[in-house]
Amino acid sequence: MKKMKLLIEYDGTAYHGWQVQKNKPTIQKILERNILAITGEKSKVIGASRTDAGVHALGQVVAFKTQSMLNTETIRKALNATLPYDIRIREVSEVDDTFHPRYDALNKSYFYIIANQRVSSAFLYRYTWTVQQTLERALMKEAARMLIGTHDFSSFQGARSSVKTSVREVFSLSIEDLKRIDFMTARFKGDFIKIRIEANGFLRHMVRNIVGTLVEIGRGRIAPHETKDILESRDRRRAGPTAPAHGLFLEKIIYK
Amino acid sequence: MKKMKLLIEYDGTAYHGWQVQKNKPTIQKILERNILAITGEKSKVIGASRTDAGVHALGQVVAFKTQSMLNTETIRKALNATLPYDIRIREVSEVDDTFHPRYDALNKSYFYIIANQRVSSAFLYRYTWTVQQTLERALMKEAARMLIGTHDFSSFQGARSSVKTSVREVFSLSIEDLKRIDFMTARFKGDFIKIRIEANGFLRHMVRNIVGTLVEIGRGRIAPHETKDILESRDRRRAGPTAPAHGLFLEKIIYK
Repeated sequence: MKKMKLLIEYDGTAYHGWQVQKNKPTIQKILERNILAITGEKSKVIGASRTDAGVHALGQVVAFKTQSMLNTETIRKALNATLPYDIRIREVSEVDDTFHPRYDALNKSYFYIIANQRVSSAFLYRYTWTVQQTLERALMKEAARMLIGTHDFSSFQGARSSVKTSVREVFSLSIEDLKRIDFMTARFKGDFIKIRIEANGFLRHMVRNIVGTLVEIGRGRIAPHETKDILESRDRRRAGPTAPAHGLFLEKIIYK
Repeated sequence: MKKMKLLIEYDGTAYHGWQVQKNKPTIQKILERNILAITGEKSKVIGASRTDAGVHALGQVVAFKTQSMLNTETIRKALNATLPYDIRIREVSEVDDTFHPRYDALNKSYFYIIANQRVSSAFLYRYTWTVQQTLERALMKEAARMLIGTHDFSSFQGARSSVKTSVREVFSLSIEDLKRIDFMTARFKGDFIKIRIEANGFLRHMVRNIVGTLVEIGRGRIAPHETKDILESRDRRRAGPTAPAHGLFLEKIIYK
């Protein structure tokens, strides 16, 4: 039995997220179906991040066990030849049997793009959240600093979670002003905000709830200093709403 | 009666092109339906370019007549509030009654993106044509030079055209090597080719047939010097196949 690690990229627009759901297209389900087709084996594919419906991934990492004699390059080619075009396998490597994509991750990063302007582009709408009201970046940055470090993030955890602990360490949380977005060879000038977060792990909806809260702070509806109280309350109702999924990208996962 | 000129942008993925077709979603049909909804008038919308199914537009120009008292900014906002997100109105202006988006155009530009590499990205596939075989840029450039100028482009004209003349003037035709494509804030390194063409007008499928022919030349299947013979033959069968629609962008239209 060998264990294969895949680095995959997907446009989440057409999918109901990572995890297998009955009668709905999910990334995990499609991968398992395609691995069955090329290896003849029913494999369970474990993903590093259980991305929500509509969330995109530039660097999702997944693993599965196989007895197949196919080499890594053949697996990559065969999967890319059969998968839908909006799911691509970037790399395949053989890893130690003990490797676990989720438990072994040291650092995961996500970013979120907000189009902070009125008219958004026909090309950017699938990948950005349009917020028309001008957001106060300074307030958002002040709040973001309070979320960095090791905290109980219960207030930012979505319902229906079943994790042992809601303590996570956020290594960095940056808020960057962008005056343009490049899309293919076109440049869209405007006001954009990129929120990037690195942590040792994330709770369900944690990034989207942090983004939704930072936007409430940028709008002036929550004061930045309340961020600390929100964290300490461990009460989901204190934080802001969940930001839409389609502005979120799983960027990279770093292992030992 | 006033005449309104709109600058519009669309992601062509979901549409059957510009022109109204029975029972199929087209950009023209959706615009006319939305103009009816906001002005109460049945207007015919004239487009500068009748883009094919799947072709994208960054700068399509269209015009329609109206008796509506709504000002240009209100029309823009109302249309953007009701149109699908993959069609956006960038600008609205009132123009002279004699303005015609197609006949008055002095210069139109299109560009086409080829991903000249094996694995394409989950994010780029809607906007690029993946050609795995390495294309000889030098041969393509040699051929491109022969297409610049005033020629009868019959050999590059799609079937079912009803234009008076197939003579067009190509002002420029460039082939650019790109070593990366930016998409949102991600950078995809690789081998890409951008083909950009400017002309006083284009025949049906003309850009896609030129791109298809240049790719045959880049593959070594047609010699560059044959380009002149292909042009002079005025025989569609002599040129290369029609490149897929989804790599093509209508870039800009310049008026007097």
